[in-house]
Amino acid sequence: MNIGIIGLGLIGGSISLGLRKSNFGDKFLGIDSNKENAIHAVKLGIVDKIISFQDLIIQSSVIILSIPVDGIKKILPIILNKISNDTVILDTGSTKYEICNSVYSHPKRSRFVATHPIAGIENSGPEYAHSDLFHKKNCILCDSELSDPDAIFIVEKIYSIMDMRMIYITSKEHDFYISYVSHLPHVVSFSLASTVLERFKNEKKFFNNMRGSGLDSTTRLAKSNPETWLPIFISNKNNLIQAMDVYIDHLKIFRKYLRKKEFHQIDRYIKKANDIK
Amino acid sequence: MNIGIIGLGLIGGSISLGLRKSNFGDKFLGIDSNKENAIHAVKLGIVDKIISFQDLIIQSSVIILSIPVDGIKKILPIILNKISNDTVILDTGSTKYEICNSVYSHPKRSRFVATHPIAGIENSGPEYAHSDLFHKKNCILCDSELSDPDAIFIVEKIYSIMDMRMIYITSKEHDFYISYVSHLPHVVSFSLASTVLERFKNEKKFFNNMRGSGLDSTTRLAKSNPETWLPIFISNKNNLIQAMDVYIDHLKIFRKYLRKKEFHQIDRYIKKANDIK
Repeated sequence: MNIGIIGLGLIGGSISLGLRKSNFGDKFLGIDSNKENAIHAVKLGIVDKIISFQDLIIQSSVIILSIPVDGIKKILPIILNKISNDTVILDTGSTKYEICNSVYSHPKRSRFVATHPIAGIENSGPEYAHSDLFHKKNCILCDSELSDPDAIFIVEKIYSIMDMRMIYITSKEHDFYISYVSHLPHVVSFSLASTVLERFKNEKKFFNNMRGSGLDSTTRLAKSNPETWLPIFISNKNNLIQAMDVYIDHLKIFRKYLRKKEFHQIDRYIKKANDIK
Repeated sequence: MNIGIIGLGLIGGSISLGLRKSNFGDKFLGIDSNKENAIHAVKLGIVDKIISFQDLIIQSSVIILSIPVDGIKKILPIILNKISNDTVILDTGSTKYEICNSVYSHPKRSRFVATHPIAGIENSGPEYAHSDLFHKKNCILCDSELSDPDAIFIVEKIYSIMDMRMIYITSKEHDFYISYVSHLPHVVSFSLASTVLERFKNEKKFFNNMRGSGLDSTTRLAKSNPETWLPIFISNKNNLIQAMDVYIDHLKIFRKYLRKKEFHQIDRYIKKANDIK
């Protein structure tokens, strides 16, 4: 069974390395729009060779789409048009509703499995890929009732090999919940970095002298790349705006307590927040 | 030279362990308002013994105040009233202006050195103390022109032993800058934790299935304890409110771009935030 991977960055690369470590799959074929990444991916043993889009589709039994979500939405119907009735295609996008919706009525919809392996770091590119990125993490499978059982079986096997736990929800639920636990933290981080960088733009020395590990962890996600994150924000715009509204309200409540010197309320606020584990 | 430490938690404990590792100081004497912490600190070798406030002041050449900032503000003038002309007293509080201001006209002001070692983690208590917490970190000395040169010398020696780099600024500057790089990130983290916990309060299963490492790092500081942080927020209220205003404005700009579909602006916003290193 050949595995075709479109997008040889952190996620695609890590899936490939994870599967190869377990001797799952025969040949690994790859495509990346970034030539350097493609060369790098071959050198790192992520794929055996780089081939054309056409050949990848013909030669692969499983096609893994690990490119930004706007790319997935664009290319998925094209691939479904071309694949055989046995090919399985899965994506790893961080938003799911638009992607699922874009192929809802496609005659080959059932060959597609919508997945989101909840794993990632702030760095991107094949050089950061590693075989155990997904170890003991969760993988969300969305709208799985629309996929053929044999396709689901293969996808479950792929993620199980990498020691992931499968969760089944709708793409709509996925996008709602993930806007709070992933997309909002990214916005929080980008905005904090933006605030601090602007404040210290003429005082870099002070900045470097005063910063500590607290700022570092809170802005870790702010290093994430726009090629991945802008399409995610766009495709989950409405949920994200709602989550931001709630978050800004929470900040404003904290600020109000501070302004009005309602310090016992801040004490309660902190104690509640401490419940995050 | 005996060292007296008031407050045997993460910071006081780590200073003590750091100094003892370098064989600086003779006896280490301690006080902690929390009995369990005090017993623990002796067991962990942080101090040789727990003694009375009166005895600590008489027997110590250097007194280290590592308690919450409201406690420092309260106890510092009392200690200055009692110490000899040779005793050095230093504090490790995360805000400096109010503390320095509270003893500005004290006849023994010059025996006090206001410091802020920029190091800390989300956990508190002597059990988290370790001798290299301060290794290669910065230590801010505030309003040092108001301290005697011999007192400054001792304090510089203490922090140098622990491999810290000294920075000299005013207490007013300190509180302004630190509100952005430390206090604001804590508020950001408490508020994000609060937002997410409230959203998922009836859906804990979903929460545990969907969360990833991104949320974890962004809410790491939300585990910090209110005993330390509420007094910090109170004593740096005005700077913090200003920093929060700027941060909320940045969030609103991001939200506006999203609402108005000005996606090229979000791309720029992310790229600028990426400069955080």
